[in-house]
Formats: sequence, C-alpha cells, structure tokens
Amino acid sequence: MNQQQQTRLYLGIDLGGTNIKAGVVRDDGLVLGFASVPTEAHAGPLHGVRQMARAAELAMQRAGVEFAHITAAGLASPGTMDIPAGMLLEPTNLPGWNQFPVRDKVAAAIGLPAILQNDANAAAYGEYWAGQAKHAQSLAFYTLGTGLGGGLIIDDHIIEGRHSHGGELGHVILEMHNGRYCNTGQYGTAEAYVSATALLRRFAERLEGGADTSVRNRLQSGQTLTPLIIAEEAEHGDHLSLELIMEMAQYLGATITSCAHVIDPEMVLLGGAMTFGRDTTRVGREFIQRVRQEFRTRTFPTLAEKITIDWASLGGDAGFIGAAGCARLAVRTGRLPVAG
Amino acid sequence: MNQQQQTRLYLGIDLGGTNIKAGVVRDDGLVLGFASVPTEAHAGPLHGVRQMARAAELAMQRAGVEFAHITAAGLASPGTMDIPAGMLLEPTNLPGWNQFPVRDKVAAAIGLPAILQNDANAAAYGEYWAGQAKHAQSLAFYTLGTGLGGGLIIDDHIIEGRHSHGGELGHVILEMHNGRYCNTGQYGTAEAYVSATALLRRFAERLEGGADTSVRNRLQSGQTLTPLIIAEEAEHGDHLSLELIMEMAQYLGATITSCAHVIDPEMVLLGGAMTFGRDTTRVGREFIQRVRQEFRTRTFPTLAEKITIDWASLGGDAGFIGAAGCARLAVRTGRLPVAG
Repeated sequence: MNQQQQTRLYLGIDLGGTNIKAGVVRDDGLVLGFASVPTEAHAGPLHGVRQMARAAELAMQRAGVEFAHITAAGLASPGTMDIPAGMLLEPTNLPGWNQFPVRDKVAAAIGLPAILQNDANAAAYGEYWAGQAKHAQSLAFYTLGTGLGGGLIIDDHIIEGRHSHGGELGHVILEMHNGRYCNTGQYGTAEAYVSATALLRRFAERLEGGADTSVRNRLQSGQTLTPLIIAEEAEHGDHLSLELIMEMAQYLGATITSCAHVIDPEMVLLGGAMTFGRDTTRVGREFIQRVRQEFRTRTFPTLAEKITIDWASLGGDAGFIGAAGCARLAVRTGRLPVAG
Repeated sequence: MNQQQQTRLYLGIDLGGTNIKAGVVRDDGLVLGFASVPTEAHAGPLHGVRQMARAAELAMQRAGVEFAHITAAGLASPGTMDIPAGMLLEPTNLPGWNQFPVRDKVAAAIGLPAILQNDANAAAYGEYWAGQAKHAQSLAFYTLGTGLGGGLIIDDHIIEGRHSHGGELGHVILEMHNGRYCNTGQYGTAEAYVSATALLRRFAERLEGGADTSVRNRLQSGQTLTPLIIAEEAEHGDHLSLELIMEMAQYLGATITSCAHVIDPEMVLLGGAMTFGRDTTRVGREFIQRVRQEFRTRTFPTLAEKITIDWASLGGDAGFIGAAGCARLAVRTGRLPVAG
C-alpha cells in the first residue's frame, strides 16, 4: 500500500427519516470529523440533498479537510431502492422521495463520485470494516429497532442481492402456520416477533389480558409504552417485561439459526436502537445469553460451537462509517472512479 | 480468452455413497466423456480412491484424452467436510471414511491438482456454469432427495461458508413450535417437511390413520412405499398422494421465501432425485406451480415477481459437471495451480 492509499479519506453519509449523519473517515476506519443535521424529509428530496451537503460540509470543517481531500462518498439510505442505479424507489420513511436518483443528486451537490447502499448493509459493512467484526471473514448483522433489519458481508463482498433486497435477515419465516402479522404484509416472519413493534404489540395484548406488571404504574403516570420502559421495568424485576424480552430473544436465536444454515458466517452481531443496554445491564446480558442458547439448541453442533454471536460495537455511527467504507470498497474494486 | 484457455479440459468426479461418476468437461461446459463405477464404500477410503481413479480413466478413454491433457480435477463429495483442507470429517453416507484427506489422496492417485467441494454446492455450480442458470448472476439450488440439500452461487462465488456449511438451504426453520423431527436432530426445519424421508413418514402416518388411497393396492401386491409410487398414484388420480405432494410443495415455497429474503438470488432451481417427472407429468407441473404460488404469497412483491423458480436441467450429471466447473473456477481465481 502506498502513501496515497494510506491517507485516503472517504465521506460517509447516513440518511435517516429524522436525521442525517455525516463523517469523514480515514482509510483505516478512523473518524476524523462528524456532524448531524435534521433531514426535514417533508420538505422534499431536493431540500434533503441540500441538508446532506450541509452535513458533509460541517463534518469536513470539524475534520479540518476540504472536498478536494476526499476520494469518494458513500450514501446509506433506508427504503426500497435500486442500488446499482443509485435510485430510491418507494422509501417508507422518506415520504415523497419516490423514484428519486439520490446518488447522482448528492454526487452533484458535493462534487464527489458517490455510491448508494442500503442502510442496514452499510452498517453491517461498518462493523465488518472498522468495528466488532474487523477480523472476521464473514458477518451476519441484525439491527433491532422498529423492524428487524439485516446485512450480510462475505469475503469483503456486500450481499446486495440481484434486486437490491439481499440481507433482509428479519424476513425469514419462523412460523408457517398461525404466524403473527408483520407490518410489511407477511405472516410469521422473524420481524413479527423480534422488533420494537412486535414487543409493544405483544405487551399491549398482555396488558389488555389483565397481566400483572409494574409497567402499569408508568403508564398511569402518563408515560407512553416504549421498549425502554419495558427494559427498565424488567431490570427492576418485573416478570412480564422480562418474559416478553426473553421470548423475543428466543425467536431471534431461531432466526439466526436459519441464517447460519444458509450462509455459515464467522460472526453474528446485534446492533440497532433496541439492544437493552447490551452488557451494561442484567437484561441485556440475559437477552444475548438467551439468543445464544436458542441458537445452540437449533443449529448443527459444529456451527453452534464455532459461530460467535455478540453485540455490535459502533452503535449509531455504524451507518456513516459503513457508508464511507462502501465508498472505499467501490474505489478499490474499480466500481467508482477516484476523484481529483 | 486465448486458444489455450478455450481448449482447457477439466475432470469432474462425483463421489456418492453408491456410485462414482466421472467426466471430462471442456472449458465451455461440454461433456466429452463420462463413466460410472460402484463406490464400494464399505471397502474403505483407499479402495474408494482407486475406484475414483478408475472412473476418471474410463471417462478419459471415452473422451479420447489423457491425463496430460487435463488442467485440473474437481471432486464433489457428500458428508461433513473441511473444504479448504480437502478433508472428509464424518460423512454419514461413507461409513469408515472419517477424517480422510480425500482431496490429496485423489490428486496423488491421478497426478492432477485437485479441489474438494460439497456435492450440493458442486451441483449448484454445475447448473450455474453450464445448466439452467447459465445466464443468471446468482442461484439458489435445492436438491430434493432423501434429504433437502442446497447450494448458493453469487457472482461466480460458491458460498462455502466459514466452516464449510454454507448453502444448507434445507435447514432453515419453518415451524418454531410443534415442528416435525428432522433426521439431523433438529425440529421444524424445512427438511422435516420437504424430502423423501418426510413424504414417506407423512404417508405412513396417514396409512396408519386409515386414509383411503390407491397406494394400499400397490403395497398389498408386495411393493415397498417409495416417492415414485406415491407420484404415480397421484398421477392416476389418488387424492391422498396428491395432497401430500402438494403439502410438501407448500413448505418448499415457504423455504424458498426465507432464502430469497436472505440472499435475493436471480434464480431458484429444483433438482435431485425426487422431482416428480418435472414438466412431463401433471403432478410435476402442479408441484412446481404450487411451490411458486406459496412463494409469491409469502415474499416481498418486488422479489416475488422477479425471482424465477424452475427445474434444474443437468439431472444426475450436475455433480460431476459442477465438480469440473469448480476446478476451472479454482484455476481461474488462482486457488489451484495449472498442471503440466
């Protein structure tokens, strides 16, 4: 590797329904500067592009670099998309941004070659390139949030899929019959059991059924039911809260079994907004232990022993770091020209 | 491509529990000569290696070529294995062949550089390189037989997995609760519903339950229950036979949904010994239609429309053709040296 490659810089932009995060990331994965601005998605995609350019400028100011120093940019976005074409198709979280050529618009706004990637794939690549899976040959990454997202990296390849739908790990079927309804329209898929939406729905059912739980006190004091409240009450000893979190862990373990038998990855990581305090809380520790236990029970013994299941390490930065990493990968594989 | 590459020849060997098939395959996938000899697995692995060498010699005689004309050899085998090490670990169908360095023993016996591949992966690669998926970017291949095997090819990469267990597509979970038992020790996996073993078990249960079926006449005349008998009676109008074959098709459709959401392949192919006469029989046509229907119901609409589900085209030759193709791939990617 020559001097120029060592010092190459990449811009990563993580476009979300609420906020845009941007960062300048060095060739070795180190973040030199970071910024976040509101998406204001309702103001339309062209306004969104200006916000992305603003986030990029702020990040570069904080890193002390200029556009001329950046080799290429990566853009991570939610929603249905055509990755090779750089198009958003019908992104649920960005209403009104349908059929929008986001990659080329951002590239023009910032004057850099750019690539588009699905946000969960980008976060997976972030963990693979610069996070917890840095030394792994392959990674299956799950994002626990409103839904159950996923990303797959094998031998430094992002499994984008033929129709930009690769790595939808939360949409394997777990219950063929009498399966729960998932918001995407399917029945019995993992996301219908493992997601904030699923946890809240399940909890509401049990509340209506008259179950005894300390969560009632929180609701009576005017609070809204959230996964955080359920996790807090579980930590304080509420049986129902713990039971439903562990039920979710059990379904997640089985979800990982299906993925492991299809892909046989070296490592499985759990990230996203709903990670129960990870190893800093009793609930977080019991959650991942329950995931591992179910996985071991259901998986071929040789794989059950060898595949590591752990927490992701980059938190909310995985998206923009991964987006920068995807730009770097595209440059290295010749899919993107080098700027300047 | 230069003249030498165009005329390169590869040897493919498909090691089975009962027979060994070997073929000389040209760089463009054309089979020049083929032979089959008994494995005589009970006589031990060293005898098996001699049988493989014999099959190879016969195939070359029939192709009119000599070892010196062959660039490299590929070996497809069933059983647990360490693919990069070229080792069989504990192959169920080859009792007594445990911890056997089959790749290097075969390479030494035939005097050619050789690679080892899982038999279902090799068959998948055969269809991808020279069969029905010849023009596809990616393929998920299912082998319907005693069990439900699988292989995944993405962008000319074989998804071997970190621990040589990639592409075990028949081991996704379809029923988390009250799942049927699968011979590999898991419950509720696809193979417990979609395989000859599963069909025969399910049929036996219904026979014991007193179900009305013309299959009883076949059994009373001394025949043994096989998937072929069930398929024949279904073709002649037996309701129970058709019902259980269609039930299996439904489970297979859901199995493919889970794989499609993880991988998003361009094409899905069905091969193996239990394909119900494919499109030549009414049962075969109804089977694949039922698979497609269940898949469409359960899969994201964009994928349901775009992913093709079809019969594989190479039949029992997919294994040795694919093994030759794997050798060719290993040479082209520098994983194998070129002989001579």
